[in-house]
Order: sequence, then structure tokens, then C-alpha cells
Amino acid sequence: MRETGRSGCPINLTLEILGDRWSLIVLRDIMFGNRRHFREMLTKSDEGIASNILADRLKRLVEKGLLSRRDDATHKQKAIYSLTEMGVALVPVFAAMGEWGRHFLPVTEELSIRAKLLSEGGPVLWERFMQELRHLHLDAPKPEQSVLGELTQAYRDALARRQAMAG
Amino acid sequence: MRETGRSGCPINLTLEILGDRWSLIVLRDIMFGNRRHFREMLTKSDEGIASNILADRLKRLVEKGLLSRRDDATHKQKAIYSLTEMGVALVPVFAAMGEWGRHFLPVTEELSIRAKLLSEGGPVLWERFMQELRHLHLDAPKPEQSVLGELTQAYRDALARRQAMAG
Repeated sequence: MRETGRSGCPINLTLEILGDRWSLIVLRDIMFGNRRHFREMLTKSDEGIASNILADRLKRLVEKGLLSRRDDATHKQKAIYSLTEMGVALVPVFAAMGEWGRHFLPVTEELSIRAKLLSEGGPVLWERFMQELRHLHLDAPKPEQSVLGELTQAYRDALARRQAMAG
Repeated sequence: MRETGRSGCPINLTLEILGDRWSLIVLRDIMFGNRRHFREMLTKSDEGIASNILADRLKRLVEKGLLSRRDDATHKQKAIYSLTEMGVALVPVFAAMGEWGRHFLPVTEELSIRAKLLSEGGPVLWERFMQELRHLHLDAPKPEQSVLGELTQAYRDALARRQAMAG
């Protein structure tokens, strides 16, 4: 009898790890928002992730090798989460999903400007962004320019434009 | 109070539709296996999808605009499912996920050879594949060369190699 859910297909194996509503949301906030502590992931979540779900997904992503967890030397009670190389390497997946969502779904300008820039920048920009993530999460050397800074500034500018129009 | 699960982020909106264990598996089998009828999706499924889950996901993917469903003129009782443009446009997402899975997860050669070829072919190959999918699903003109044929042949060759080694 065939065992349900097992196959060596890369799409299937990827979905066994990331095929749920929240795992990629958690990774997105760590990657693009540089949120590294449980509390800020919980309180700043645009989608209002529940505390128990966040805890479960962080644990699972550590077990599966996409995140690492260590004690924060500055806060005895806090853990700090970092992307591993396996987590950093999801940049092209986020870029492809963001581009698809941007074209077919009712996105807001301020929350899709980063997807637009990632798409327009293509693989060269993704590689620069991954280098920066390796610096922020894996102690690699600091790149001269910050892709995350550019993406974050574009998001803030778009947010300010919308608020100016609304006001 | 913040409403859980709502945000206009393209990643979030994409996961609201595709963030589960099976939706992308169903789309993968339609896209890469050209399985168009319920029965063949059920019986040929490598992952052994359950009948009720398959029915639910097909219904949902039609509602969300990734698939269309029409009666098959040759079989009165059968429906035939086709990718819409929104479904065809997932090729780069599958390519990125396949590439990631291939690098970090215990894939088998025969089930990852198509991901390898898609990755190596890059955006030029993805566009050719999407043109062919538009022919197979959306009545666009038939391309001269078949990407799906090349991918399927590579899969069959890899499968035959493994079976020869096992025998």
C-alpha cells in the first residue's frame, strides 16, 4: 500500500515543510522585517499571527533547518532567531511568489513595492540581498550597499504617500 | 481590533490561496503531468492524495481563478480541468520552489530532473513552457517544440536508469 504524503519530488518535499498558512509568513517577517525575537514577531505581525502558532512554527522551522535559535546575550530570557543558509536561499521563492501575487491578487501598493523591486532587480539583486542576509544572520562580511535598506525605504515612502493621500 | 489573516501583502495573499499541503500538488500534476480529469489525478498521484481533499482543492482552485472546469464532450459524466492564465503564471514559482527543494531536501533523481532542467533553462525556458501550457489549456497556437515533452522524456529516462540499476 502506498504511503500517503511521501515522494522524493522537490515540490512535494518543499510543501511538506512550507506548505501551510504561516511558515512562510514567519520567514518573510524575519527576512524582510529583520524581526528576530518572538515578541516583535508577534506584536508587529500584519496578519495577527496567534502566539501558539508562532511558537509552533518557529520550533518547527528550527527543527527543519531553516532557522537557528540562540540565547540573546543582552537579554537572558530572550532567544534570537536567525536564518540559516537554507532560509536565506528562499529569496528567489519569495521573489517568484511576490511577483505572482502582485499580478493576480488585490495587493496594496505599500505592501507590494518590495516585491516589485525584487522582481525588477532579478537574480542579481536577489544575490546581493542574500549576501546581506548572510551578513545579518550568519556573520558574513557586511556588503557595501544595503538591499534591505532600499526595500524598507521604498516601503516607508509608499506608506507615507498613502497616508498623505488619506489625510 | 486587527482582523486576523488579512493584509494586502502579495506573499500573504498568495498563501491565503496556495498555503496548504495540497493545492500546489494538484496544480503540479495538472501542469507537469497534464492530468486533466479527476480520476487520473486521484489514481496517478505520487503522494496518494485523498479523494475528498482532491475534490475540495479542485473546487477551491476553480473558485479562486487558477483552474477552469468544463464538461468533457467525449465523456458525458466527466469534467476536464484546465489551467487559467493565473495558473500558467505559476511556472516561475514552481521553478524557484523546485530549485530550492533540490538543493536542500532529499529528492530522488527521477523526480527532480524536471526541476533541474527548469532551473538550468531559466526564464527563457519558463516562457516557452508557459506558451505550451497556453496551447494545452487555453487554445493558444501550438509551439514548434514541446518543453513538456523534453521534461517528461528526461523524467522517463531517469526512471529507466534507476530501474536498470535496481534490477
